Amino acid sequence: MTNIDDLVASLPEGVVVTEPDAMEKYRFDWSRDQSAGTPLAVVRAEDAGQVQTAVRWAAEHGIGIVPRGAGSGLSGGSSAVDGCLVVSLERMRAVQIDPASQVAVAEPGAFNADVKRAAAEHDLWYPPDPSSFEICSIGGNVATNAGGLCCVKYGVTTDYVLGLDVVLADGTLVELGGKRIKDVAGLPLLKLFVGSEGTLGIVTRVILRLVPRQGARSTLVASFATVRQAADAVVAIRAVLRPSMLELMDRATVNAVEDYKPMGLDRTAGALLIAQSDAPAAARSAEMAAMESACAGQGAEVFVTDDPDEGELFVQARRSGFPALERRGSLLLEDVGAPVPLLPDLLDAIAEIAERHGVEIPVVAHAGDGNTHPNIVYDATDPDSERRARLAFDHVMSAAIALGGTITGEHGVGRAKRAALPEQLGPDVMALNRRVKDALDPQGILNPGAAL
Amino acid sequence: MTNIDDLVASLPEGVVVTEPDAMEKYRFDWSRDQSAGTPLAVVRAEDAGQVQTAVRWAAEHGIGIVPRGAGSGLSGGSSAVDGCLVVSLERMRAVQIDPASQVAVAEPGAFNADVKRAAAEHDLWYPPDPSSFEICSIGGNVATNAGGLCCVKYGVTTDYVLGLDVVLADGTLVELGGKRIKDVAGLPLLKLFVGSEGTLGIVTRVILRLVPRQGARSTLVASFATVRQAADAVVAIRAVLRPSMLELMDRATVNAVEDYKPMGLDRTAGALLIAQSDAPAAARSAEMAAMESACAGQGAEVFVTDDPDEGELFVQARRSGFPALERRGSLLLEDVGAPVPLLPDLLDAIAEIAERHGVEIPVVAHAGDGNTHPNIVYDATDPDSERRARLAFDHVMSAAIALGGTITGEHGVGRAKRAALPEQLGPDVMALNRRVKDALDPQGILNPGAAL
Ligand SMILES: Cc1cc2nc3c(=O)[nH]c(=O)nc-3n(C[C@H](O)[C@H](O)[C@H](O)COP(=O)(O)OP(=O)(O)OC[C@H]3O[C@@H](n4cnc5c(N)ncnc54)[C@H](O)[C@@H]3O)c2cc1C
Ligand SMILES: Cc1cc2nc3c(=O)[nH]c(=O)nc-3n(C[C@H](O)[C@H](O)[C@H](O)COP(=O)(O)OP(=O)(O)OC[C@H]3O[C@@H](n4cnc5c(N)ncnc54)[C@H](O)[C@@H]3O)c2cc1C
Repeated sequence: MTNIDDLVASLPEGVVVTEPDAMEKYRFDWSRDQSAGTPLAVVRAEDAGQVQTAVRWAAEHGIGIVPRGAGSGLSGGSSAVDGCLVVSLERMRAVQIDPASQVAVAEPGAFNADVKRAAAEHDLWYPPDPSSFEICSIGGNVATNAGGLCCVKYGVTTDYVLGLDVVLADGTLVELGGKRIKDVAGLPLLKLFVGSEGTLGIVTRVILRLVPRQGARSTLVASFATVRQAADAVVAIRAVLRPSMLELMDRATVNAVEDYKPMGLDRTAGALLIAQSDAPAAARSAEMAAMESACAGQGAEVFVTDDPDEGELFVQARRSGFPALERRGSLLLEDVGAPVPLLPDLLDAIAEIAERHGVEIPVVAHAGDGNTHPNIVYDATDPDSERRARLAFDHVMSAAIALGGTITGEHGVGRAKRAALPEQLGPDVMALNRRVKDALDPQGILNPGAAL
Repeated sequence: MTNIDDLVASLPEGVVVTEPDAMEKYRFDWSRDQSAGTPLAVVRAEDAGQVQTAVRWAAEHGIGIVPRGAGSGLSGGSSAVDGCLVVSLERMRAVQIDPASQVAVAEPGAFNADVKRAAAEHDLWYPPDPSSFEICSIGGNVATNAGGLCCVKYGVTTDYVLGLDVVLADGTLVELGGKRIKDVAGLPLLKLFVGSEGTLGIVTRVILRLVPRQGARSTLVASFATVRQAADAVVAIRAVLRPSMLELMDRATVNAVEDYKPMGLDRTAGALLIAQSDAPAAARSAEMAAMESACAGQGAEVFVTDDPDEGELFVQARRSGFPALERRGSLLLEDVGAPVPLLPDLLDAIAEIAERHGVEIPVVAHAGDGNTHPNIVYDATDPDSERRARLAFDHVMSAAIALGGTITGEHGVGRAKRAALPEQLGPDVMALNRRVKDALDPQGILNPGAAL
């Protein structure tokens, strides 16, 4: 094992952690991949200069680096690798708002919620809202190109990134973009880093575009007899409008949420849709009416409220889908997507796979974007249960690919879905990925084994 | 000179053009760069397969390729190079709309206006609207990441690109993305091609996201005593809202437009702002009122209309800014930008440079995005006039860089601004650009001499 003493000595006290106990929590992200390795050390950087020092040291010794934000990832992208250096950004959390430019300048470890809160003080809004917004970092959001609930109308992380500071594989710090809104000078490298899952560089500063604060929202909750009907309603809605939220929960998820935090959701429904409109006044009423009629057209019972607090309760129920399901057993987390009109077919295919393999696959979905989270529940103490779950995991991804969809809409490939990537991309696009990776990280030290 | 006969023979009759007269119009884009070279041949491809054939042939012979859309570019990006192959996409113009998925699938040579028209038939809208939308291709828009007038609210081309087919430097055709709205599988290579100015590959198919059609618009025209006051009003407006258009024309431009197509604009104003709101009903009134009061706060005379036809007349006047200025002499076209709050400083700097070098620099601007087009007028028959114009051209770019801005907000670096790129990006980012370019085009045959 490489001697880490020179790295420890070159950074302030407390920055480099090597005690096994203290390192334990840096081994896993929320996917809790049990095959995660044990790092050589964890660098809890306080500034970009310390990140550069760590990267240069790793480059010199040919040691792998796993960049880590808040560890809320769901695809093992920040799971540790044996003998690697985990570079944690958790201590770099400053957020500054420039209200005149309508941008936030954030350190990567700041939580998404920190950015939202700071923006709100200036009557501004940072839209991207992963369900995990209170526990995920903005650097992680950039690295995964995170989505969320309002993205059906407001787009995903990449649509808001104006500037990035990135430490490259050789320790060079580059500044890409800036506070200017439009800039096409040189290759669009800024965008190349958004969604690169820590494989091309470590993000040490983010400049984010903000927008005027969101208007009042109305909320619709519709309960359908079947998942298919809910999905058909989604297709009908999306063919005519772009609501500010359009989420789906199937019966198993609704019941898990009710078991976890009871709030009186309809346990008998085949599926619920939770939708919102934030359009101004009359336009909002029109959007709500259109959504209501699309749902009624599929035989749904529909409840509508203009009360923001009541609406927020339903959104919270949706957000608690994943923690609620976690209590049912071990989970394999999917993030498959398809073109919106094929959402019903994707959900049918998932149900068929669950039945064929005798596994439970509750689904929550950012349905308005065609992005679903089938969560495969299994019993980790039963090898056969795990085997069937893993088969189902692969088949769900194949089903999405067959529909012209994707194995990951927002969580990233990480380590969990890497084996399935060639099936989606094919050899030529895989080779192109590899060429870009090799050009930027010839030693292959940045997040080895992740993403591509 | 390389013998082109085998390429001619391997493609259908009429695809490869070699007659000097017929090639003449493929030598220039709208910047009319007189140093443009003479191509070996022009390939007027009918499909992606023919593009592949041409690229493979060029790769084999080490011959440069200049990809060409409609040739409306303003930075010499599609100007020919001596002995190169111009690959023109002008004959690949099919557009299909998939209304259920709300996407357009377009061949690269389709005009932006073709896509808009096809979408409108399904009550859908493709927002990005360069002033040249009737004469520029969607492939060119993708290659330059084109902006436009409504981009202040609706974003630029990259925000709408869901999928691309690209012919790489070795002739391989890759399909990136698709009709799915969210997809983070693999590196974000799709975005790497948007704005790459034909230096990384040739786009042969584009999948574009569409949105519901735009609502009714109200239009505001405000005339200010000085450019500074107009720019200050822009800053005030953008600090509180995001209108669907916020354009600026200075006095020289207004007068050129009035000389070209008289419509009664205020020739005595120091600058005009033309703004629109397309928010629904009450919200639109509120936005218009806020813009009116911001303009009045800078002493402007304000005219407002809800009549779409009347509004469109003003927008057309704005769009004719460039053709109108062309009649005043030869032009050096700038596209500099700055963070919005620094727009007034940028405009001051431009005026100061004009005075210092004794040149006329009329300005039109996508002001709401901080993106300006100072157009330097000179007399091409007078070497001293040209010398001063070129000095001013460089100084305007330096001024933008000094303000944390960019040398190009939307037109691209092309050949015209290439010398200034290192000043903006610095050596490390230049090296990173080069590394990506070399990885994808090791022979350097794609658009040699352009963009980076
Ligand atoms: C309850 C729950 C709900 C969720 N809901 C959503 C959702 O709605 N939408 C969504 O998109 N995701 C969701 N997620 C997943 C997760 O929160 C996101 O992927 C988030 O962006 C990860 O951020 P993080 O800081 O936790 O990153 P980590 O887990 O620490 O890392 C994620 C990836 O980013 C890389 N990385 C992290 N920081 C940096 C950096 N500074 N520079 C370079 N690379 C870096 C890591 O190497 C890793 O590959 C959810 C997770 C949970 C637990
Ligand atoms: C009057 C006028 C107004 C304008 N207003 C605007 C404006 O408001 N906003 C704006 O952004 N631009 C504007 N422009 C500039 C120009 O229209 C845009 O840059 C447009 O995107 C160029 O498209 P094109 O098809 O004409 O491309 P071309 O000029 O043919 O090429 C432009 C660049 O793209 C590359 N390219 C073209 N097609 C492909 C392809 N299929 N694959 C790979 N590379 C390709 C070329 O190599 C070149 O580098 C304006 C131009 C004019 C004349």
